[in-house]
Amino acid sequence: MIETPYLLFLGDAPDSLAAKVAQGIKDWRPQNAVGQFRMEGCKADMRLPDMTLEEARAAGAKTLVIGVANRGGIISAAWKKVLVQALEEGFDLASGLHNLLRDELDLVAVAQATGRQLHDVRVPSVQYPIANGVKRTGKRCLAVGTDCSVGKMYTALCMDREMKARGLKSSFRATGQTGILITGDGVPLDAVIADFMAGSVEWLTPDNDADHWDMIEGQGSLFHVSYSGVTMALIHGGQPDALVVCHEPTREHMRGLPGYKLPSLELVRDIALELAKVANPACQVIGYAINTQHMSEEDAQAYLADVEKRLGLPATDPYRYGADKLVDALAAI
Amino acid sequence: MIETPYLLFLGDAPDSLAAKVAQGIKDWRPQNAVGQFRMEGCKADMRLPDMTLEEARAAGAKTLVIGVANRGGIISAAWKKVLVQALEEGFDLASGLHNLLRDELDLVAVAQATGRQLHDVRVPSVQYPIANGVKRTGKRCLAVGTDCSVGKMYTALCMDREMKARGLKSSFRATGQTGILITGDGVPLDAVIADFMAGSVEWLTPDNDADHWDMIEGQGSLFHVSYSGVTMALIHGGQPDALVVCHEPTREHMRGLPGYKLPSLELVRDIALELAKVANPACQVIGYAINTQHMSEEDAQAYLADVEKRLGLPATDPYRYGADKLVDALAAI
Repeated sequence: MIETPYLLFLGDAPDSLAAKVAQGIKDWRPQNAVGQFRMEGCKADMRLPDMTLEEARAAGAKTLVIGVANRGGIISAAWKKVLVQALEEGFDLASGLHNLLRDELDLVAVAQATGRQLHDVRVPSVQYPIANGVKRTGKRCLAVGTDCSVGKMYTALCMDREMKARGLKSSFRATGQTGILITGDGVPLDAVIADFMAGSVEWLTPDNDADHWDMIEGQGSLFHVSYSGVTMALIHGGQPDALVVCHEPTREHMRGLPGYKLPSLELVRDIALELAKVANPACQVIGYAINTQHMSEEDAQAYLADVEKRLGLPATDPYRYGADKLVDALAAI
Repeated sequence: MIETPYLLFLGDAPDSLAAKVAQGIKDWRPQNAVGQFRMEGCKADMRLPDMTLEEARAAGAKTLVIGVANRGGIISAAWKKVLVQALEEGFDLASGLHNLLRDELDLVAVAQATGRQLHDVRVPSVQYPIANGVKRTGKRCLAVGTDCSVGKMYTALCMDREMKARGLKSSFRATGQTGILITGDGVPLDAVIADFMAGSVEWLTPDNDADHWDMIEGQGSLFHVSYSGVTMALIHGGQPDALVVCHEPTREHMRGLPGYKLPSLELVRDIALELAKVANPACQVIGYAINTQHMSEEDAQAYLADVEKRLGLPATDPYRYGADKLVDALAAI
């Protein structure tokens, strides 16, 4: 569990795209971000107050979150200087970088001397159990997709936001690095050892109030040959009551797999549901989340109308048009 | 890669069941076992020559394989004495125990001093790639199951033996601890990190001669909620041309999951095939391997006849009646 609120470290980000993690925190948990820390030459701006480390501590920030992808995969000397100072000022550090904080001996030494925590959210810090398949109380909704990176995290976050806006009980459950940094907690599922994947998802979504919904961030796709095992573990460990099928209509082939066509929505619906029923016979597909970011307003509306007509369930782009339809469908379960 | 041949260490095995690994080596790779080493009180017997460490070295043994499950999950002082002597006599050590050899500081010290290897086959020793889904040359057959421990390893081993008996090109590809110790090589799939599972299976079954078959050991089941992710990775990483569906008809619930009924053969056939076609559109289900060990001769024959009639494909117990039918079916692809 990472202590909030955060100071978002943008470093010397070459552009806003490099600051995807910081953007996610700003968009989804603005209350978690008291300000941003930018170095000379930084081209990203979250439109948060620029703060020194001292100012951010005074404003209550507990953790410096590296909100930017590093160049060349290494923590530069310029970054390191700020990170060491932050530990000395009393910040914990949190990072989703491949270059782990714990592999930097100087950071480890300073963290030990100052009693601060280094959070590498890319690697698990918990010994997860093997899944036992026992039915849990509370409700769970899982986003599954035709492909990787089609909007499963955004769909779960949009639904969680809409649930909370309606005064309903909901928790977004992060299963990837960005999601974990946004919420301060979760399971880095792609880094979990095979035998414990489904168990880690059970651990993440424990017994809860009967009217509480976990909105579980999906990963990969049953139809993506590199990562389908991770998706499978989510479907069984998550024990979902509801599935939302996510899709990006302009994608020409599976991400990173030229020659692999995307499956139809119908096929994903049928196979995911059949497998989900193993863990929860009452599971239903409740709607479709279509990522229309590369489509005109007209094309997007036409596509959504076609999906609704063809598949007989609500379809929307929850980021563009809101998650009302999907949350309405959940309420009907 | 573990150096063969082996001396099989049976320790103080309380019974033959505890020596499952040794039995597997004796049954499937007898040429890999020059003899057995038994301590006082050992109740297991592989009907191999009893040898001292010295005699086994003289007979050509390169590796002492721990062929027995240890009591209480720890390497006892009595075992340790033999293991240290074995290193000093020039043996490598290989083990599938949960208690890793590498976690025993004295063994590590002696291995370093003597230049010998410690093989813990329960943990991966390779940095596996992420699966790329690129079509590979050669053919692959994967055993999938209705449940865990229904005979997937034995099916693959039986088929491999029959292929070799016919002079056909075949390799058994181990994906679990016992299989790895039997063959000296493989991937401990349940211990691989999620993102690399499918890639490890691609790595295990590389390009090969057009008429060569990999007989891939299956793991878990798409319908076993604890381990289905591992099975999924095998189906996609393995790119199988042929699937054999394995089943144990007397099982009352999924292994370790009271309340979970086994899926029908039809459902496993349909779902596994649909998912296998993602990686290899030409994949076919070629037959059924039924584990009849708990059935009378009459019941077994009746069950097999019923499966053949109902499902229209060859069905046999390959361990009890031979793998001819299944290998015939492969040859027809």
